[in-house]
Amino acid sequence: MISLTAVDGIPEIRPADDLAGMIAAALAAAGIGLEAEDVLVVTQKVVSKAEGRVVELASVTPRSEAESWAAQWGKDPRQVELVLQESAEVLRMAPGGLIISRTRHGFVCANAGVDLSNVGGGDVATLLPEDSDASARALRERLGELAGSRPAVIISDSFGRPWRKGIVNVAIGSAGLEPLLDLRDTPDAQGRVMHSTVVAVADELASAADLVGGKVAQRPVVVVRGYEYRPGEGAAAELVMERELDLFP
Amino acid sequence: MISLTAVDGIPEIRPADDLAGMIAAALAAAGIGLEAEDVLVVTQKVVSKAEGRVVELASVTPRSEAESWAAQWGKDPRQVELVLQESAEVLRMAPGGLIISRTRHGFVCANAGVDLSNVGGGDVATLLPEDSDASARALRERLGELAGSRPAVIISDSFGRPWRKGIVNVAIGSAGLEPLLDLRDTPDAQGRVMHSTVVAVADELASAADLVGGKVAQRPVVVVRGYEYRPGEGAAAELVMERELDLFP
Repeated sequence: MISLTAVDGIPEIRPADDLAGMIAAALAAAGIGLEAEDVLVVTQKVVSKAEGRVVELASVTPRSEAESWAAQWGKDPRQVELVLQESAEVLRMAPGGLIISRTRHGFVCANAGVDLSNVGGGDVATLLPEDSDASARALRERLGELAGSRPAVIISDSFGRPWRKGIVNVAIGSAGLEPLLDLRDTPDAQGRVMHSTVVAVADELASAADLVGGKVAQRPVVVVRGYEYRPGEGAAAELVMERELDLFP
Repeated sequence: MISLTAVDGIPEIRPADDLAGMIAAALAAAGIGLEAEDVLVVTQKVVSKAEGRVVELASVTPRSEAESWAAQWGKDPRQVELVLQESAEVLRMAPGGLIISRTRHGFVCANAGVDLSNVGGGDVATLLPEDSDASARALRERLGELAGSRPAVIISDSFGRPWRKGIVNVAIGSAGLEPLLDLRDTPDAQGRVMHSTVVAVADELASAADLVGGKVAQRPVVVVRGYEYRPGEGAAAELVMERELDLFP
């Protein structure tokens, strides 16, 4: 059995906050003793805030392309400017104003992961962590120091997908586990060798955690217990399909 | 808290088997009393087998296109023939032999959902259910009769995605819950109205269940308990993006 438990009592995170410390304190207050076999799923937004990946919109000067796109679709030109800055490549600029980008990490997502938010009463945008795998590794190490056990850590964000409606949470950072479970050439229950089964378990863990953490309740930290992950140094960067192998680049 | 429990003791399913009856028996044997608030996630393969969506490969005559494609990539031409028959549209025929299709349901997936399998000792292919939402509804009704409680039901299958490596489980059938949780225009924890957040919770439930059901253990039925789903008549067909709205058709 696997259990998914959202951790209550994580306060609003601000730049330079000790996120690991706040998580450890919330876990202790909730009576949850972290185990090395646990997977801790943390949403991107709190990681970005703690890492100072926050830009005051008042400080942003939009380029003319951002001005005209924003005017056409009723968007904030400063957010559009940040989306363009955060994009290694813009794949689509869609009716309605949505921009689909490839980020420098290689992730393809809406608005290059730039979200409007509100930190300490001011209008800001949050950007994706510079290196979300490094963020995951750092959280894991620090939690190991503070909580005594070093869980696997996943940093999650919600992405849309082609062909299907709605967003699902996926892993943009990973530490301590293999994000891809490679079952190729292992026999299944019938003894039939599976030739092409590589499961993106880090993404499935991120999606599972979203069911209990959720977008409304916004509990940004979820403890997954009972999932027998494969320990490893795997990074979420491994989940990015090499462009030359992608059938839908 | 949400718990994910795989149900042990589901036997190998064969055409015309009473799948709901076998699930009810396995639940009873495992001491799991089904609740109406539960979500039962069932893998496509057992549903297809029970519904007789099974074709003996010996009965298939491949067209010449299937012969040549199979010869080029070392595939079984009879499987390729079935993939072409099950495809409403072929999107890609890729080096290595993989075919990406849009099925008649509108799902975009590898090999149109045609899997090679082994039923009762013979080489067969399983096809997707003809109407996987109807399959989910039927399972739900029959489980309600047999187990006393009528859970929500999801039928899952593993799909690849553009841009990301690995497969994840998604919902191809749904009954009793809204597969898309529409949070648009509801306030988040900070009181900020969310303009464009529609969460594909049915897909997240399917992914979560895969973590415990799994491809190796092949436990095809998972009970998700504690997820506060939104009851409704929503079908997984709602998860299919209308082609004219898709930015990556």
